[in-house]
Amino acid sequence: MYIAMNRFRVTLGRENDFEEIWLSRDSHLKGVPGFVEFQLLKGPERDDHRLYASHSLWASEAAFEAWTTSDAFRKAHAGAKPREGIYLGPPNLECFEVLQKVK
Amino acid sequence: MYIAMNRFRVTLGRENDFEEIWLSRDSHLKGVPGFVEFQLLKGPERDDHRLYASHSLWASEAAFEAWTTSDAFRKAHAGAKPREGIYLGPPNLECFEVLQKVK
Repeated sequence: MYIAMNRFRVTLGRENDFEEIWLSRDSHLKGVPGFVEFQLLKGPERDDHRLYASHSLWASEAAFEAWTTSDAFRKAHAGAKPREGIYLGPPNLECFEVLQKVK
Repeated sequence: MYIAMNRFRVTLGRENDFEEIWLSRDSHLKGVPGFVEFQLLKGPERDDHRLYASHSLWASEAAFEAWTTSDAFRKAHAGAKPREGIYLGPPNLECFEVLQKVK
């Protein structure tokens, strides 16, 4: 399994705008080959921003890579122009391989 | 749901030591009230380290907080003295609330 995590630094006071955009969008992820699960996460408040993260879980790195060049990806990101002032800089993508899972 | 994520910066060349310690330990998490799932994640290589992360998923923040003061927590961390040179500094704990989950 493979996790692609995008980390967003959201300007303090704009948290509601960020959540509204994300919770109302259509991710176009359902039915994508190898897609397992998506989570939107609200993280800690720092000096000048609040950290949010999106997690998407994939069957493999190859499935994630294939999605990033697919029509579904293009659709999900079309018109995703961020509203001004919501973000402190671009998101930070970090990808992880799942070594162990305990339930 | 609530995710407690610990981020570890592991010295380059010591990845195997880190994985051996983590994959062989007993987390004492099974049966802890509110515990849902644990994942050990291998992240990207940076200039001077490789990023690893542990994710633990909890029914609530309260369940996570209760665990951190429990006997199970004490047992899991007893004798967890890190082998010298594996880590670049202490781990960085980040906690997240799950706002949305799409499967």
